[in-house]
Amino acid sequence: MLSFEFPDGNQKEFENGVTVEDIAKSISISLAKKAVAGKIDGQIVDVMQPLVSGGKIEIITSGSDEGLQVLRQSAAQLLETVAKKQFAGIKIGIISSDDDGLFVDTDKAERQISADELEDLASQMKQVIKNDATVKRVYLDKAAALKEVENDPYQTKLVEAIDSDKVLFYSIADVLTFAQGVVAPSLKDLKHFKLLSVAGAYWEGKSSNPMLQRIYGTAFYKAADLEADLKMRQEAKERDHRVIGNNLDLFFVDPKVGAGLPYWMPNGSTIRRTIERYIIDKELANGYQHVYTPVLANLDLYKQSGHWDHYREDMFPPMKMDENEELELRPMNCPSHIQIYNHHIRSYRELPLRIAELGMMHRYEKSGALSGLQRVREMTLNDGHTFVAPDQIQDEFKKILKLMMDVYNDFDIDNYTFRLSYRDPKNTEKYFDDDEMWNKAQTMLKGAMDELGLDYVEAEGEAAFYGPKLDVQTKTAMGNEETLSTIQLDFMLPERFDLHYIGEDGKEHRPVMIHRGLVSTMERFTAYLIEMYKGAFPTWLAPKQVEIIPVSDEKYGDYARKLNSKLTAIQLRSHVDDRSEKMGYLIRDAQTHKVPYTLVIGESEVKDNTVSVRKYGEDDTRTMSVDDFIKEILNDIENYSREN
Amino acid sequence: MLSFEFPDGNQKEFENGVTVEDIAKSISISLAKKAVAGKIDGQIVDVMQPLVSGGKIEIITSGSDEGLQVLRQSAAQLLETVAKKQFAGIKIGIISSDDDGLFVDTDKAERQISADELEDLASQMKQVIKNDATVKRVYLDKAAALKEVENDPYQTKLVEAIDSDKVLFYSIADVLTFAQGVVAPSLKDLKHFKLLSVAGAYWEGKSSNPMLQRIYGTAFYKAADLEADLKMRQEAKERDHRVIGNNLDLFFVDPKVGAGLPYWMPNGSTIRRTIERYIIDKELANGYQHVYTPVLANLDLYKQSGHWDHYREDMFPPMKMDENEELELRPMNCPSHIQIYNHHIRSYRELPLRIAELGMMHRYEKSGALSGLQRVREMTLNDGHTFVAPDQIQDEFKKILKLMMDVYNDFDIDNYTFRLSYRDPKNTEKYFDDDEMWNKAQTMLKGAMDELGLDYVEAEGEAAFYGPKLDVQTKTAMGNEETLSTIQLDFMLPERFDLHYIGEDGKEHRPVMIHRGLVSTMERFTAYLIEMYKGAFPTWLAPKQVEIIPVSDEKYGDYARKLNSKLTAIQLRSHVDDRSEKMGYLIRDAQTHKVPYTLVIGESEVKDNTVSVRKYGEDDTRTMSVDDFIKEILNDIENYSREN
Repeated sequence: MLSFEFPDGNQKEFENGVTVEDIAKSISISLAKKAVAGKIDGQIVDVMQPLVSGGKIEIITSGSDEGLQVLRQSAAQLLETVAKKQFAGIKIGIISSDDDGLFVDTDKAERQISADELEDLASQMKQVIKNDATVKRVYLDKAAALKEVENDPYQTKLVEAIDSDKVLFYSIADVLTFAQGVVAPSLKDLKHFKLLSVAGAYWEGKSSNPMLQRIYGTAFYKAADLEADLKMRQEAKERDHRVIGNNLDLFFVDPKVGAGLPYWMPNGSTIRRTIERYIIDKELANGYQHVYTPVLANLDLYKQSGHWDHYREDMFPPMKMDENEELELRPMNCPSHIQIYNHHIRSYRELPLRIAELGMMHRYEKSGALSGLQRVREMTLNDGHTFVAPDQIQDEFKKILKLMMDVYNDFDIDNYTFRLSYRDPKNTEKYFDDDEMWNKAQTMLKGAMDELGLDYVEAEGEAAFYGPKLDVQTKTAMGNEETLSTIQLDFMLPERFDLHYIGEDGKEHRPVMIHRGLVSTMERFTAYLIEMYKGAFPTWLAPKQVEIIPVSDEKYGDYARKLNSKLTAIQLRSHVDDRSEKMGYLIRDAQTHKVPYTLVIGESEVKDNTVSVRKYGEDDTRTMSVDDFIKEILNDIENYSREN
Repeated sequence: MLSFEFPDGNQKEFENGVTVEDIAKSISISLAKKAVAGKIDGQIVDVMQPLVSGGKIEIITSGSDEGLQVLRQSAAQLLETVAKKQFAGIKIGIISSDDDGLFVDTDKAERQISADELEDLASQMKQVIKNDATVKRVYLDKAAALKEVENDPYQTKLVEAIDSDKVLFYSIADVLTFAQGVVAPSLKDLKHFKLLSVAGAYWEGKSSNPMLQRIYGTAFYKAADLEADLKMRQEAKERDHRVIGNNLDLFFVDPKVGAGLPYWMPNGSTIRRTIERYIIDKELANGYQHVYTPVLANLDLYKQSGHWDHYREDMFPPMKMDENEELELRPMNCPSHIQIYNHHIRSYRELPLRIAELGMMHRYEKSGALSGLQRVREMTLNDGHTFVAPDQIQDEFKKILKLMMDVYNDFDIDNYTFRLSYRDPKNTEKYFDDDEMWNKAQTMLKGAMDELGLDYVEAEGEAAFYGPKLDVQTKTAMGNEETLSTIQLDFMLPERFDLHYIGEDGKEHRPVMIHRGLVSTMERFTAYLIEMYKGAFPTWLAPKQVEIIPVSDEKYGDYARKLNSKLTAIQLRSHVDDRSEKMGYLIRDAQTHKVPYTLVIGESEVKDNTVSVRKYGEDDTRTMSVDDFIKEILNDIENYSREN
C-alpha cells in the first residue's frame, strides 16, 4: 500500500500501481474530470501513470496555473504529432514547455520548416482536436521503444537515456510520439494557441552539432490571455534592441566573422561616442583620474589576482609567445588599475584615489548566451576603482551612489531597484576572513543608503567572497533581469597585491578597493538605452539630430544646404534629404528613423528666414526663426534626456 | 701576383700575401704611418692581413671618416682587453662599432658591471695606451683559437663561425682578444673617448638567451668632436620621450607585466584623450564616418585578407576556442572596415565612402625592438579607409593630403619629408597585375602632389605589392627615421573581398581602397609629440594647464580655490598648489612640470580681482584681470599648437 498526503493535511492509502486519475476519482468524479496531471512531492506526473511510491500529492486541474504548463506540453506533443503526419521522415529533437510558451525542435533533411508553414500546421492541430481529442498512453518496453524511434537519431538518444524498462509514448490520431513531458488526458482544453516563429537551435546546444529548426509557440486557457500575451510579445519585439539596431543601422554581429563580436555602424558609434565622452567628462568632474591600460598582460598577473584560479572558464585561452611569456586577454580591469595604483608610493592625502577607464575586456560567453549587444565576448566597461582608507567607505560609497543617480537622471532612467548583498551570517567562514571589516563595511553601506533615503532589498549570503556589494537591477525588453550598475567592495585584492598607503602616522596601511561601473559596458548600456527609448533617442544622443527637407530641391535646396552648414558648423548632426521623392515620403522616412527634428523648407521659410519644425513624437508643426530653432535644439541637447 | 687598382685609376701588382701596410709603404712612408686599415673592393681589412686577392684598393688613414670607425673598433678591442684584465673569468659577446659609437657585450657571472665602474675602466684604457700603444696581430689555427676561448661560450660560438683555418687575435698589453673587426696598428690616436652607459642586451637578440651587459662608448680624433657629440647625446636624452614620460608621469611599461604594453598614467591619458577627440572631430567634419569594430575575429578573415599568409610572423598566435573556432587579434583594421563596407550594398552616390576608427591592433614586435611608446605590441591607430571609384583617386588623395597638413599645422609639425613609392617599372610582374590601374594611380598621386606644390622624393620599386603609396617621414630624438603618416592605395583587398558598388549604369564596379593614417598610432604620435615639444605641451594638450599658487595659503588660499573652481567649471585643467613650501620652490616645481600657466596670488591680486600670470617659457610676469586671463587661455587653447 502507498500513503498519500493531500494539501489539506489528510492522509489516504492506495494500492501500489494506483494512478492520479484513480486518486482523483476517489475524491470526486468532477475533480477527476478536471484533472490534467498530478504532482507527487513536487514532481509533475501523468494522470494515468501507475504510481509505485507515495508522498505529498496535489491534483493539477484544467484552468490552473500549473495546468497551463501541461496544456502547453500537450500542444507541443500535438505539434510533434502533426509534423510527423505532414512530413514523412522528419526527425524530432527536444520538445518542451515553460512559463514563456513551448517549442519543438525539428530536423527535416531536404528542406527546413519555414515560418510560412506554421499556419498550416496550426490548422492541422485544430483538425486533430476536432476529430478526436483523446490522448492514449502506450508503454513500450525499452527494446520496442528503441525500435519505434530507430530512424530518428535524436529520439534514439533521448530514449536511450531513459532509466526504466517501460517507456511512455503518447498516441494522438494514431501517431505514436515519445513522451518528453506530461500531457493532459484530452486535448479538449487546447483551444487558444499560436505557433509563433521558427529559429535555428543546435542539438544539445553545441555549435559542433547539427542545427535544428525550433518551432516556438504558446497556449492559454482563455482567448483574452492569448491575446494579451501576443500583444506583449509584439511590444517586446518592437523594443528588442536587435530589431531596432538593425532598423536604425546601429550595429551588426556576423557569427561567421566572430560570434559575440559586434561591429558598430556609424549611427551606433555616434551614440556610443556621445555616451563615452559624457561619462568621462562626468567622472573627471567628480575627481576620477582616467587612464588607458593594455588589454593584454602576462598570465601571471591573473594568477596573482586569483582570476585564473576562480574565473578561468570565462577567460580566453592564454597565448604562448615563447618559453617565458604567456599573454592573456583580460577578463576584468581591476589588476590593470592596481598597476596604476602601485606605480607610485601612495599617501593618505591622495585617498580616496579614483582610477577610471573605458576598459576593454574579453569574456568567453557560451555561444547560446550571446545576444546582440547585450551579451557579447568583447566589451568596454565604464570601469572605476576607488582606493579608500577603511573609514572612508561610507562617504565614498555615498559619493558613488550620488554620481550614479545623477547619471541615471541625465539618461532619464528610473525603472530600477537596489539590492544590497551581505555575507551569510551563519557561514562567515566562507568569506574573506576579517569579521570587523565585514561588519563595518556592511553597516556603512546600509548607512549610506539610509542617509540618501533609498529603498533597497537586503540579500544575506549573496555577497562575493571578497566583500559586500550593491547591485542596480533592471529588466530588458525580453523580460530578462540585468544588472545596470554595481558597487562592489573588495578586501581581498589589496591583500593579494600587497597594496598600501602611508598613513598620517608615517606607517603603511592597507586600503580597501571599491569596484564600480556606473553604466556597465558600452555594449550592454547601449542595448538597454535602445530598448528604453524604443530607438527614439533624445537629441543629445541621436545619430542624426536634424533632417532638413526642402519642398523643392531646385527652388529651396540652396537655402537648405546653407542652413545645414550653419548647423554642422556648431557640431549639430544635421543632414539635407534632397532625394527626388514626394515630401510626404521624406517626412515619414525621417519619422521612421526617429530623427528628433525635421525641418521643412518652402517658400515662406526662405522668404522669412525661418524653419518649419516638426519634433519627433509631436503632431504639430511650428514655424520659428533659425536662431530660435538653434536656441531650442541646443537647450534640448544641454538638457540630456531629462524630462523638462 | 695580385693586381690592385688605386682610387686615381692607377694599377699596380703585388705578390700574393702582401699587406695593406706593404702597399702603403710602396707609395710613401708617411702614408704607411698614417694608415689604420685598408679597403679592398669596399671591404675594410686589417693593415697587416696577408692579402690573397686583388681589387680596388683604398688606404684608410688616421683622421679620415672611415678611420673613425676603425678608431672606435680599436677602442672596443681595448675595452675588452682591460675588462678581461680587471675581471677574471669575464665572458665577452659581440664587440662592435659604427657611426653612432661602439659597444662591448659582457657577462660577469657573479655580479654585472655597473655604470659606476665605467670611469675606472676608462682610466685603465688610458693607462694601457700610455704604457704601450702597440696592437700585435696573432694568427692562431682554428683548434688553438677554440682552445684560447674555451672558457667563454659566446666567443666559442663566434670563433666556430669563422670560415678560415687561421683566426686573427689582437694582443694588447699581452692580453689576447679575438678580432671581431678591424683595429688600427697602434692605439696612439685613441685620445678622446668616453664610456657612456651600460644596458642589458640579450645574446643574439633573443629573449630566451642570457642577458649580457652592453657597455656603450664612443671615440673621436678631436676633443671638440667628442664634446659636440656628448652634448648632442645629452640633448637627445633630454628629449627622449621615455625620460620625459617618466619625469612628467605620462606612462610606464613594466616588462614583468607585459613587454611593449604601456600603461598610460592620468597625465599621459589626458594628452591622448585630447588628441583622440581632436582627430575624431576633425575627421567627422571632413566627411569620415567613425565606427567601432572588434579587435578579435575568426582567423578565416585574415586568411581571406592575406595577412595570415604574408604577415604571420608579426601576428599573435590564434586562440583555439573549439573545433570550429580560432580567434585572432587583428594586426590591422582594414578587414574590419571592409566588413562595414560590405554590410550594405553600396551605390556610386556614396563614394568616396570614408570609414574611420581609433582601431586597436596587436603586432608581435621583437622584444629588442620595443621602446617606450614608440615601438609597442598593442597600439591604437588613427586609421581610415576610403573606398573610391578609380577616377576619384586623385581628388580623394588631395583631400587626405590637405586634411593631413591641416592636422600637422594644428600640432605645429613642420619637420618632415614626403616620399612617393612606385612599383619597379622593370619588374612589373612582381606587383598586382593591372598595368592601367598602376599607371593611372601613380600619375594621379604625383599630380596631386604637384597641384598642392609639395616637394617629394620618388622611390621606384618601393611600393607594396598591392599599390603605390605616400609616406611622411620624420626623425625621433634618438635619430631613428619614423613614418608619421601613410596614404596607401590598395587594388588587392577589393578583389580578395569581392567589393563592389552599383555604378550610375546600374552595374557592379570594383572600388579602390585607400588606407590612411593621419597621425599614426596614439602611442607613436604621443611619443613623437613628447620629443617635439620636449615635454612642454601647448596649453590645449597640457595635462595640467594652470597651477595656482597662493603666496600664503592662510590668507589667499580661499581666493585661489574659488578661482580654481571658476576655471575647472569651464573645463580648464587647473589646480591649486597649497603645499606648505616656499613660494620660489612651488613656482620652480610648476616650471619643472612645464605647466603652461602659473598664477601667483597675493594681497594685491585678491584686492584687485586680478592674477599674476607667468607663462611657461616667458621670463616676465604679467598682472591682468581674471576675465582677461580666461580670454587669453581660451584663445590659446582654441589656437591649438600653432605659432601665433
